[in-house]
Amino acid sequence: MEIMQPEIAAAELNSATLHASLADASMESMNLLNRIADTYPEAISFAAGRPYEGFYDAAQVHQYLQVFCDHLGTERKMTEAEIARTLFQYGETKGIIAGLIARSLAVDEGIEAVDGSVVVTVGCQEAMFLLLRALRADSRDAVLAPRPTYVGLTGAALLADMPVLPVHSGEHGIDLDDLVAQLRSARAAGRRVRACYVTPDFANPVGSSMDLADRHRLLEIAERENLLLLEDNAYGVFHTSAERPPTLKSLDRGRRVVYLGSFAKTGVPGARVGYVVADQRVTGGPNGDGLLADELSKIKSMLTVNTSPIAQAVIGGKLLSHGCSMVEANRRETAVYRRNLNQVLAGLARRFADCPGITWNEPTGGFFVVLSVPFVVTDDFLEYAARKYGVLFTPMHHFYGASAQCRQLRLSISTLTPERIDKGLDRLAALLTGRLRANGGAAASGEGAADGSATPPGAPAGPSPDGAR
Amino acid sequence: MEIMQPEIAAAELNSATLHASLADASMESMNLLNRIADTYPEAISFAAGRPYEGFYDAAQVHQYLQVFCDHLGTERKMTEAEIARTLFQYGETKGIIAGLIARSLAVDEGIEAVDGSVVVTVGCQEAMFLLLRALRADSRDAVLAPRPTYVGLTGAALLADMPVLPVHSGEHGIDLDDLVAQLRSARAAGRRVRACYVTPDFANPVGSSMDLADRHRLLEIAERENLLLLEDNAYGVFHTSAERPPTLKSLDRGRRVVYLGSFAKTGVPGARVGYVVADQRVTGGPNGDGLLADELSKIKSMLTVNTSPIAQAVIGGKLLSHGCSMVEANRRETAVYRRNLNQVLAGLARRFADCPGITWNEPTGGFFVVLSVPFVVTDDFLEYAARKYGVLFTPMHHFYGASAQCRQLRLSISTLTPERIDKGLDRLAALLTGRLRANGGAAASGEGAADGSATPPGAPAGPSPDGAR
Repeated sequence: MEIMQPEIAAAELNSATLHASLADASMESMNLLNRIADTYPEAISFAAGRPYEGFYDAAQVHQYLQVFCDHLGTERKMTEAEIARTLFQYGETKGIIAGLIARSLAVDEGIEAVDGSVVVTVGCQEAMFLLLRALRADSRDAVLAPRPTYVGLTGAALLADMPVLPVHSGEHGIDLDDLVAQLRSARAAGRRVRACYVTPDFANPVGSSMDLADRHRLLEIAERENLLLLEDNAYGVFHTSAERPPTLKSLDRGRRVVYLGSFAKTGVPGARVGYVVADQRVTGGPNGDGLLADELSKIKSMLTVNTSPIAQAVIGGKLLSHGCSMVEANRRETAVYRRNLNQVLAGLARRFADCPGITWNEPTGGFFVVLSVPFVVTDDFLEYAARKYGVLFTPMHHFYGASAQCRQLRLSISTLTPERIDKGLDRLAALLTGRLRANGGAAASGEGAADGSATPPGAPAGPSPDGAR
Repeated sequence: MEIMQPEIAAAELNSATLHASLADASMESMNLLNRIADTYPEAISFAAGRPYEGFYDAAQVHQYLQVFCDHLGTERKMTEAEIARTLFQYGETKGIIAGLIARSLAVDEGIEAVDGSVVVTVGCQEAMFLLLRALRADSRDAVLAPRPTYVGLTGAALLADMPVLPVHSGEHGIDLDDLVAQLRSARAAGRRVRACYVTPDFANPVGSSMDLADRHRLLEIAERENLLLLEDNAYGVFHTSAERPPTLKSLDRGRRVVYLGSFAKTGVPGARVGYVVADQRVTGGPNGDGLLADELSKIKSMLTVNTSPIAQAVIGGKLLSHGCSMVEANRRETAVYRRNLNQVLAGLARRFADCPGITWNEPTGGFFVVLSVPFVVTDDFLEYAARKYGVLFTPMHHFYGASAQCRQLRLSISTLTPERIDKGLDRLAALLTGRLRANGGAAASGEGAADGSATPPGAPAGPSPDGAR
């Protein structure tokens, strides 16, 4: 055998030869934001979308596991050996708690999940990838999504080589007229629009919700236009029951809605358990007809094989401990989030009511508030805020895609105590009024300009802040 | 807004509009085999590649979790609240036990994993997808792999739209002359060969291992041909130390080897924890140079966000309980596998030594033995074996790709007791001698022909059984 090429010291890969997703700024968003947060651990963070951790206790993991094992013994009549096998061995690709999840959907959401339609996934993120991978057959395929949108959807679409076509999004969620317009223009351009992604309840990042009339109208559009809807409902549990509108899936009579659920906000983020309900019929397959869930399960079997049964058992135990109701399981958390949200909204009003150019939206629940300011909010400005004022938030441009500029920032209310909220808002007020004074007169972003890291004062505005009032 | 299309009762998707992977028979292999196994639960299974479960005890999950939490407290000086947060919250994308894994690689394999080069994944399966997704930039890109090969690699490649170019594989693993030939002919045809997948130790499905000279030669080829090697080492721990050759990665001086590890066979399959060591430099990225591990982590952040910290904690606890040595942790299991393998090999010799046309290979460890027979082994024949003889195995065609036919079957030795092995081999002998008699004279596959499900006796042979002797 001949060896013809010269010797090379150490392997090197050029990033230009790697998958295109890796060159997209969206993929770096989370890392970049985490890096800034890690650099300023003492800063008060309105950035993290993590759930409140005041009620965490490591002993709960053991309790939940025990509750689930007891359930396997009593309700499913398993022997000790079978219980051990269920936790330790590979399990069904669709998951071992799909039945408990279906029960919780009936209890909490009035959704009757068809047998076999639930696939338990490694967080909702895996479910999004499974769906987009399944639905992307060739380069004509695309998915619609409101803009701004959740970075996880953008990332999953990048990995599936699936373009995301933006739909205007307003104070009440996705703009339905623009949805129809975008759908038709995409189809006219030869695109195959496989689905539209929506978050009707407290959408990340804007925090807004769709009203009941719009939910019905969206379903009608889906029926008439033969459009699949991907309903992401990570935050719906945090409605107070008085105000809670039904999910799209519970209103869905034509199997138009694929329902994406997550226990990351309501259960235990560290379990990494989410799920998808996909009851759509798939025809003409090699083994006859089946459900979309079966196709997703096939992809999952080659992606993660199955979701850790141990992690599923923890979530199963939490479900069983609360009558399979995540609404029940989150009574205390929901009260905390509501209190925090009210405090942030009142605190903003107190500090910025007379501040020209600063406005914000007023979600009725969820984790997020969007603040609009009269200048472009860059990552450098975030770094400046962390370094000089000890406060963190998320520049909204991260939710608008690669090169967007945006005069908004997202405040997350989920992890803070009342004291930290007040202190954090004071810091934010100092930062913003300082910046506005600088804008009005001297150097840009105060002292930040000195190290060259701050935004130039004349930077152009980005997308119009529709999500905010 | 006008609604122009007619109403449709229930959404339906045509499988022809879904991703091509879903139409590939490889993606169905596992499901099909599991379906047959589920239909005949009393059958003795030489099919399952699951680890031995005789030592399983649900209490171990609690013990391992506790050991890991104690470690966080004492060695990492965490408070109770920090420990709870570590288990419950989102964690670093690269994982919370990357350091323990690096320690175990030093202890068990003599591999010095560079800082930041380890990414903890949802089983080794996710690691394979991350790698192939990262390495697939356009339609020129392909990966080399021995044929037959692990179905998980085939599946991950399908999901990444990455063609797998087969390399001849013999009694001692991948054929190095054919590797160079395939590499050059692919390059001559305009292909960009991104990597070659290899399993030097007890490769699934053949069970063979590469000798030391071939390992060195493979690394030389990789150096000279500028080829990345993806070393999958799920079974290496089950060598007895006397015979154990070094891993490719421990011999790798030019960072040519990406190392894939799994705790599915050695730890707890139900934790779904694997990992990848990717210390290759990536140049020209948007944020400067970095490691391939950083790119994999970026993809992971949009695929599964992170591997469940609870599941990682279970594996971390198991590592800590055995001085970070999976070799130590698996002393009893290794003895069981060796005993089972010896018993299967002796049992085959006793039953088939004088049986013309029936041969098998003699791996020195691992889970698998390949049996060659003088007829094509179809899935119908497997179903017949399960139904009429109560014995299960894996038709080897599943490891040759979609439409292959093959006169071989794989016997897995990992889950059985000595009594079940003897009984199972008796059943296998009855099945095969019955079939051979039928081949020699009357109806095909004995009684099986009656229901039309058995293989016709004259079915053509498939790939030559190189893995077997």
